[in-house]
Amino acid sequence: MYPDLAELIPSASSLTAANCFLGSRLNVRIIDKKNGIVEAGKADGLKSISLEVLDSFGIGDGIRNEAHRVEEITLWNSDPAGGLSRASEERTEFAHGTSINTGRIEHHMIENLRKRSTIEVEWRKQPVHMDIDLDQVDNPEAYPITVSVETSKDGSDPGLLWQPMHAERDSVTTNYQATLTSKTVLGVMDIVPKTSFPDIRKVAVIHSSKGTVMSVPREDKLVRFYIQIDAVNPNAASGLARRDLKVEDLLDAARAIMFPYTMEAAECAWWSAYRVGQRVANEFARHGRIFLAGDSLRACAEHHCGREILATYEGERKPVAEALINFDRDYLKHFAKQHASNHAEFLDAYLKGQKFTTGIGIRYPPSLLISEDVDARSLHGGLVPGLRLPDFQVVNQSDGVPIRIHQRLRADGKFRIVVFPGDVSQEHAMSRLNQFGAWLARSQLDVEVSHSDGGSEEFFIETITVHAARRADVELEDFHEALHPWSSRWGWNYWNIYADDESYHDGHGEAYQRCGLGRNHDCVVVVRPDGYISVVCELENTGAITSFFDALQPIKSVRPRL
Amino acid sequence: MYPDLAELIPSASSLTAANCFLGSRLNVRIIDKKNGIVEAGKADGLKSISLEVLDSFGIGDGIRNEAHRVEEITLWNSDPAGGLSRASEERTEFAHGTSINTGRIEHHMIENLRKRSTIEVEWRKQPVHMDIDLDQVDNPEAYPITVSVETSKDGSDPGLLWQPMHAERDSVTTNYQATLTSKTVLGVMDIVPKTSFPDIRKVAVIHSSKGTVMSVPREDKLVRFYIQIDAVNPNAASGLARRDLKVEDLLDAARAIMFPYTMEAAECAWWSAYRVGQRVANEFARHGRIFLAGDSLRACAEHHCGREILATYEGERKPVAEALINFDRDYLKHFAKQHASNHAEFLDAYLKGQKFTTGIGIRYPPSLLISEDVDARSLHGGLVPGLRLPDFQVVNQSDGVPIRIHQRLRADGKFRIVVFPGDVSQEHAMSRLNQFGAWLARSQLDVEVSHSDGGSEEFFIETITVHAARRADVELEDFHEALHPWSSRWGWNYWNIYADDESYHDGHGEAYQRCGLGRNHDCVVVVRPDGYISVVCELENTGAITSFFDALQPIKSVRPRL
Repeated sequence: MYPDLAELIPSASSLTAANCFLGSRLNVRIIDKKNGIVEAGKADGLKSISLEVLDSFGIGDGIRNEAHRVEEITLWNSDPAGGLSRASEERTEFAHGTSINTGRIEHHMIENLRKRSTIEVEWRKQPVHMDIDLDQVDNPEAYPITVSVETSKDGSDPGLLWQPMHAERDSVTTNYQATLTSKTVLGVMDIVPKTSFPDIRKVAVIHSSKGTVMSVPREDKLVRFYIQIDAVNPNAASGLARRDLKVEDLLDAARAIMFPYTMEAAECAWWSAYRVGQRVANEFARHGRIFLAGDSLRACAEHHCGREILATYEGERKPVAEALINFDRDYLKHFAKQHASNHAEFLDAYLKGQKFTTGIGIRYPPSLLISEDVDARSLHGGLVPGLRLPDFQVVNQSDGVPIRIHQRLRADGKFRIVVFPGDVSQEHAMSRLNQFGAWLARSQLDVEVSHSDGGSEEFFIETITVHAARRADVELEDFHEALHPWSSRWGWNYWNIYADDESYHDGHGEAYQRCGLGRNHDCVVVVRPDGYISVVCELENTGAITSFFDALQPIKSVRPRL
Repeated sequence: MYPDLAELIPSASSLTAANCFLGSRLNVRIIDKKNGIVEAGKADGLKSISLEVLDSFGIGDGIRNEAHRVEEITLWNSDPAGGLSRASEERTEFAHGTSINTGRIEHHMIENLRKRSTIEVEWRKQPVHMDIDLDQVDNPEAYPITVSVETSKDGSDPGLLWQPMHAERDSVTTNYQATLTSKTVLGVMDIVPKTSFPDIRKVAVIHSSKGTVMSVPREDKLVRFYIQIDAVNPNAASGLARRDLKVEDLLDAARAIMFPYTMEAAECAWWSAYRVGQRVANEFARHGRIFLAGDSLRACAEHHCGREILATYEGERKPVAEALINFDRDYLKHFAKQHASNHAEFLDAYLKGQKFTTGIGIRYPPSLLISEDVDARSLHGGLVPGLRLPDFQVVNQSDGVPIRIHQRLRADGKFRIVVFPGDVSQEHAMSRLNQFGAWLARSQLDVEVSHSDGGSEEFFIETITVHAARRADVELEDFHEALHPWSSRWGWNYWNIYADDESYHDGHGEAYQRCGLGRNHDCVVVVRPDGYISVVCELENTGAITSFFDALQPIKSVRPRL
């Protein structure tokens, strides 16, 4: 009944996509041409937004436990005496940055799939051919794409095993548009350093007349170094010399830049050297069937939404990818500059870049999935359609357990109506909220309210209330039952009502403040399955909510009620 | 060269012991007569001290992630109208209590052994015979005990496979002294409740005229219920009737006690009924070879310490076990009382019991391993020989990463000299600390100071400094190098010096305050491998430290220096 769905994209993205489909009845396949999990190397920085996404899969805390936390960045510069000195006033902090081996993230994602589904990564497979039946691409019931997959018996043997495979989406035919191949040759190494450099356990950016080094502390005494090789060894910029590079050349370059500090490697876990190349795909999607990645496509594949929403994907992601490439090019230029006078510029570029690396700067344009409503935007500073819902801690009304909202917003394909009713210990505020609850119960939306359906019932929309009263001043039974639904199968739902209140052990989340709300304000926020805000409106403006969901045809809008 | 070491004790204790031997070159075997990991049931409450021990194995955070946090206890009582009412003013809080299935704790312990050693649990094996060569029990080089082990091919087949096995310690011959078999029959069940009782997601103790129910919220909508069956169904106290009990009888009893609230089970994951029996072993150790559990014996088995220290084990643990049994009997008596007037007494017993269930009330008596020094005790409130080192957060001097001290005190068999030098941004404080460092470098203790030994070198004692200066006001190089040792193999050690300072994201640990120290006070604390305090002394009183370790013969007291 449900179509096969193949995600034929590199493993990190496809594992993310597969985790977004957990709990769905769709068939998901992941193929990867690698022999298995990445053992070492590859980009390892995890910023707050990535951790929020991992939280929504339920594996954020496990990865936080393993990752090395990065708390500080320190900048060093040539000094007139020919040495290096710390530009200490420029120390700054990451927002919970961490560094971890990419392979460990893959490991957690794969374990999560094993624990909660039957999905297994099929290693050593790659797509080699694809047939597209153009007459059928717009038929939502059709399987118009057939992909042929090649399996190598082991990493080296190219012996083929052809398999026909029905696919809704893949990335085989994507053409990349080359935008930059830099002359800068970077060396990268993970070593245990023996050094007199004092800031080796902080993120350190060292600009000297000999070039630039950036170091990032990691787990198990390791430090990741990025070293500008070509400044010290101009021959390294030629392809031939680059192939001849040894780890000793990287160490020599680092030593020259970090002089007068000493630097040796007690151990080298991994190293590489490369010229920076960047590319952006011309297309992010084709025929509404084939996607470069797809973390919010589930609603469509499960027939909750019409195929029209698929067009939003390229519109949202391509501008972000292009802006990121531009930033990266700019950043590399500053990185490779050798003169001390450019240090402040570098810092500026670095801090500007945080808005990309943390995801905080991303705002999606208005579309079927992002409301244009500007009144609400101007009213509530932190809650703006197209931005991500800010992360904040709330306390469960029923058991007092604190949770961060993005941990609560599980990546299970559901839209959420997040209600901020203000201080509901005030009678008028509770009354306004319960009128909203009564509207929900009457509405034709596919939202969970009290019901007599069976346990396997899945709803497309869920309601979460975050009130601003003291938790002890209200009881669960004070809230309209549509807001903490009773199911004849499972009883009351205790996980839909939260307080923006002090927790016993983990402080106060200050959720209202983080969202730009006063404690006597109220509003409703519709949040997409990927954590971005679709709609912000007043509690009385239920029409805005209805209109939004009505536009996402074919919503199952009629549901038997208790 | 190292003796075989068998721990023939039930799996939870033996897994704990085995985790204490991680990184040791001793051979460890674990046998268990069960078929495998406990699937459901068994006691599941984890209090702060247990989590600290799991932290010292490196698995505390993993278990915290899975466990359901318990934040509140609520007490209910009969009211004059024949219903129940919340004694709401008696709400109290646990210190980070959690509930989790015992099987998951076993899982994490076993995974930790797999990851960091070659130790595997041997399931379906039990000891059936033991030979003791009494002439050799006091010879530290001898293997005087041989244990015969029975293996059942599967859980039901009693086919025997005899294996001789050399053992240093086991518990086969321990006689238990029965101290209490209660008449109270308790029912226990893990269910998903469908109920109108409002506090079902808190720990709730409900005393009614029909008996007592205690409920503890768990993961996955489950709630654990303890139900006094015999009050509702007096026949249940007879052995015959107890065997005939069904889960419906437990539900009926709970319903009668919780009336007028409704109670049904949407799902029952596990249930049982039992009469409470308690027993304390007559002996905790025999011949200094056989122990009921042994989490601080490693030093002796590795020949760091003389066999004299083994006698401390029974002296420390038996009084605690007896006190716990007495508390438990008292608690059960209060639990089973049916009259409302006893409610306050119950609360009092419950709160008194927290000192056992949290481990905070335990103080070991003076011995070879616990100094008698009373001057230091009166001087420093929180730091008392025989008590556990309080848990507190500190910030790493080199990278700014916060860590709790019991996470840092890895269960690797090491003693720690924890130095509190006060505010070392004051010149005289830093000078006093560095005089202590110079003494350490000169001392004959088996402590890691800067050295030219190879990478496999293991030290019996490690130094940790927790200073009270602002972290930014001092540099690592300001500290005597014995306090952050250089190794010719690995370079500087960045994980020995910490600040009691504000962290970027996790607040201030207030370590000095928690230890009863002023920020201008200083002192030295010797901490045992199990986290208990051996010695507290002034920074100048290095003689107390030398005397303590000298008494633990045969310490390897001479070590080549750089």
